[in-house]
Amino acid sequence: MTTIKDRRTIRKYKHEQIDDSLLNELLSTASRAATMGNMQLYSVVITKDDATKQKLSPLHFNQPMVMDAPVVLTFCADFHRFSLWCEQRDAVPGYDNFLSFINAMSDTLLFTQNFCTLAEEAGMGTCYLGTTIYNPLGIVDVLKLPKLVFPVATITVGYPDESPEQPDRLPLEGIIHENTYRDYEACDIDRIYAYKESLDENKNFVKINSKETLAQIFTDIRYKKSDNESMSAGMIEALKSQGFL
Amino acid sequence: MTTIKDRRTIRKYKHEQIDDSLLNELLSTASRAATMGNMQLYSVVITKDDATKQKLSPLHFNQPMVMDAPVVLTFCADFHRFSLWCEQRDAVPGYDNFLSFINAMSDTLLFTQNFCTLAEEAGMGTCYLGTTIYNPLGIVDVLKLPKLVFPVATITVGYPDESPEQPDRLPLEGIIHENTYRDYEACDIDRIYAYKESLDENKNFVKINSKETLAQIFTDIRYKKSDNESMSAGMIEALKSQGFL
Repeated sequence: MTTIKDRRTIRKYKHEQIDDSLLNELLSTASRAATMGNMQLYSVVITKDDATKQKLSPLHFNQPMVMDAPVVLTFCADFHRFSLWCEQRDAVPGYDNFLSFINAMSDTLLFTQNFCTLAEEAGMGTCYLGTTIYNPLGIVDVLKLPKLVFPVATITVGYPDESPEQPDRLPLEGIIHENTYRDYEACDIDRIYAYKESLDENKNFVKINSKETLAQIFTDIRYKKSDNESMSAGMIEALKSQGFL
Repeated sequence: MTTIKDRRTIRKYKHEQIDDSLLNELLSTASRAATMGNMQLYSVVITKDDATKQKLSPLHFNQPMVMDAPVVLTFCADFHRFSLWCEQRDAVPGYDNFLSFINAMSDTLLFTQNFCTLAEEAGMGTCYLGTTIYNPLGIVDVLKLPKLVFPVATITVGYPDESPEQPDRLPLEGIIHENTYRDYEACDIDRIYAYKESLDENKNFVKINSKETLAQIFTDIRYKKSDNESMSAGMIEALKSQGFL
């Protein structure tokens, strides 16, 4: 409980390596997460060598964690292994479709989050790289992922060399709904986002970017419609290429 | 660590209710999970009343946990709230696309898994209902989900009234890859699936269903190609209807 409550993203790591047997134990324990029909529709690629990290780095927009962390884990939705097993057992697999991707992605993310909790409980720090799905075919290429394997999350892991402030979260009332979804009125939105908007750090972002509101930082700079649309097309192309669409 | 290591799905619950303040604390703490740009792209609909559960139940193939659990949680990918905030702040949201759905789904599942770990740590049992994405539009309708809100996971929660055996998992070597993906040879597949195939329970499944192999139980009965394909079409239709495609 305390581990999760005090959780924060760690982007700077000590040079200390992570013991292989500990890493394996954490991954093995993480696989206790719920999984669709106990199929375990995931694989994780463990990258420690600099040459492979150097190839991954630009695909993650050269975020320094990729080169600096002792371990980079790419969690992949994987229906390939299961389908191979089916084929070897006179069974005809039918998992080259979108629903199967969503099932495998779900399995993978539950496993990923379990791993993060366990790593943090063991004193490590993690950073979730959302960039994994920005250029999935690049990662497919570097990690040599076969069809029906798709990268969905990258986690950098190491022993923390920083202790950043914990970021804000929305008040709970902003994310829960009783029985059915109660739509937000203008006053609800004002109240839910008030604290986030009040933070000096966020006010400063708005100022130095010459914007009028914090929301414009997101829509105009960080997560732009044009980028989202071109990356949506890339994601769909990648799903086709990997055999899920 | 022990909570995750000993984890098993719980499908039978005591009549005991879950204290609201405890449930809220667990959900609030769960929101410490990593989230894309700290946008928290999720909502959770908490269903406790029988009338709503009765509407949800057939959408989950009448699995008894929906009616029997004191609490049913539907975790939804949600770009609606964030987009409303943008609109109220003179910012033009650009999140009606596939990448944004994948981002929101990722956020949601990390939050979901964190919640499950916390609930189990607090002595509760959970069951992950994979059926949520089998008929998403039905759930959208019952829970009155607006556009840019999409159900991705349902968790039933309660105090355990059973202590089932822990299910098998693949050996770790079956799911990890060093540096790049090492494809499986026939002997790898045999070794990785040997334990699962050796279990009496699984051998019995094969026998009573008059199948030749355990894999055929999956391909011919549990997760059939024709079902996957029709549900893929339904999922894509639902993504369009909810504004993500």
